[in-house]
Amino acid sequence: MKTVVKGLNRPSFKEYLNGTADAVSSALTEQFPAHWNIPAVLRESMNYSLTAGGKRLRPLLVIAAAEAFGGSREAALPVACAVEMVHTYSLIHDDLPAMDDDDYRRGKLTNHKVYGEAVAILAGDALLTHAFYSVVQAGRRHGVSSDALLSIVEELSEMSGARGMVGGQVADMSGEQGLTGIEELEYIHLHKTADLIIFSLLAGGRIGGADKNQLEALRQFGRDLGLAFQIQDDILDLIGDESKMGKKTQSDVEQEKVTYPFFIGMEASQQQVEKLTASAKKALIEGGIPDSSRLLEIADYLMKRDH
Amino acid sequence: MKTVVKGLNRPSFKEYLNGTADAVSSALTEQFPAHWNIPAVLRESMNYSLTAGGKRLRPLLVIAAAEAFGGSREAALPVACAVEMVHTYSLIHDDLPAMDDDDYRRGKLTNHKVYGEAVAILAGDALLTHAFYSVVQAGRRHGVSSDALLSIVEELSEMSGARGMVGGQVADMSGEQGLTGIEELEYIHLHKTADLIIFSLLAGGRIGGADKNQLEALRQFGRDLGLAFQIQDDILDLIGDESKMGKKTQSDVEQEKVTYPFFIGMEASQQQVEKLTASAKKALIEGGIPDSSRLLEIADYLMKRDH
Repeated sequence: MKTVVKGLNRPSFKEYLNGTADAVSSALTEQFPAHWNIPAVLRESMNYSLTAGGKRLRPLLVIAAAEAFGGSREAALPVACAVEMVHTYSLIHDDLPAMDDDDYRRGKLTNHKVYGEAVAILAGDALLTHAFYSVVQAGRRHGVSSDALLSIVEELSEMSGARGMVGGQVADMSGEQGLTGIEELEYIHLHKTADLIIFSLLAGGRIGGADKNQLEALRQFGRDLGLAFQIQDDILDLIGDESKMGKKTQSDVEQEKVTYPFFIGMEASQQQVEKLTASAKKALIEGGIPDSSRLLEIADYLMKRDH
Repeated sequence: MKTVVKGLNRPSFKEYLNGTADAVSSALTEQFPAHWNIPAVLRESMNYSLTAGGKRLRPLLVIAAAEAFGGSREAALPVACAVEMVHTYSLIHDDLPAMDDDDYRRGKLTNHKVYGEAVAILAGDALLTHAFYSVVQAGRRHGVSSDALLSIVEELSEMSGARGMVGGQVADMSGEQGLTGIEELEYIHLHKTADLIIFSLLAGGRIGGADKNQLEALRQFGRDLGLAFQIQDDILDLIGDESKMGKKTQSDVEQEKVTYPFFIGMEASQQQVEKLTASAKKALIEGGIPDSSRLLEIADYLMKRDH
């Protein structure tokens, strides 16, 4: 009989990362079963962007946060898929000619370049709509409580809507015509990027049964992590390797977007990423979370990423 | 003391219609409270389309269905607003240059003509997103059960998403390149139009506490009513009065859209509207619903409308 020493068979962080991403990618392919009567071009267009890869960061956070409280991966997966669908829809709409007008995303043609603008808009709409269906399935199939589900629906709406991600996107577009200061840039980063990261952590916590104080710790962790993530994104857009990024770098400069490095310089921006990551980890460590080890590893991993 | 004889003080249908529309319009203006931090242009753009009027048919159906089972108007209002926000977002996106490219809607400039395409896309996204938040408020504020709310979230997603309204819209666009037959047109009508009407009735029924058989009756009523409504729309687009419609007529002909009158002629289309309305009413009358009088009046009213 094999003796299992606690921690000995624990997968490495890389194994954990890949295992989670694979589970999410696989679950995403099952979102629209073949027997559902959906126009073929719409189904293709949605799946095209859902299977385009990406880091699957937000789903990873849902799962890691649920597991930090002893929640199961199975119960977290429908909500992990929901947040990835919201993220994916936002990218499809962001790439449209009326918005950032991008031809490539993750090394592939953007959705509207393949399926046309009308289908791309509608595919985005349908993915956003389906996210809320997927949340409810965490209850139908895996027994997540109705109270947790309704809070998750409420927070997904709040953090991806007018007060959240969409609000950040509108502010970002207006910012192209001249930002008034770094406070406005923080508003954009907080809502356009951090809000969906905060949502992922709260949703995972709710699935795992986190209490009010623990949810607050997850919120602070997500806020600092999300801001660090976006500043890092701005840095990588300036100095990153196009082949690793899967898209053109220097796009912020071309589009005259105002970024963190623009305001405070490259070195101070890098210091800010480190400072925010440290502050995120501190909030988590002091938050009384049963096992925050994976979440802490994720914070370190994001700080060191090159794409 | 005033003696109230049952039915004597019952408002006329017109009073009921106007009272409901006013309650909905008023509740819609309260969806995004002033203290919520939302970029001004996004708030304006959303409110521009939310306050553009319209028949408020779908909210009316939510409320009338809830009241048919003794449910309260207050409890139904957040869900009534949700379905109107979904309807409104779909109109904003339908009007975009990449879709129907319409300049006017309900006698006013379309959203993108006033705020630009990017903001119009995002305002639509935010309205769709907020609809799910509003559904949850029926529980937070008016005690609608969690079970009912989760089913409402699930059905709103299903009936407005890839299998529902968005699917119908994609099929409609493809249909412009040549429909194969009247079955395909029925698919479009069923999903693009009837699904959200069916949703409204089911949601109202759930709020009022309808049982499984009663929900089935509401579903059949909604299906036939929705199809009749869309055929009537096609007829009015051909022969309606532009000043009453608030938009250009003959737009289907201009866009070479295939409609019911195109397939079976005007007279047979009008007969079909009457037939479907009769069949809708029959399903309702036989459905064991405590008080279906308002829903029946709505069916007759829709058949006779001129805009």
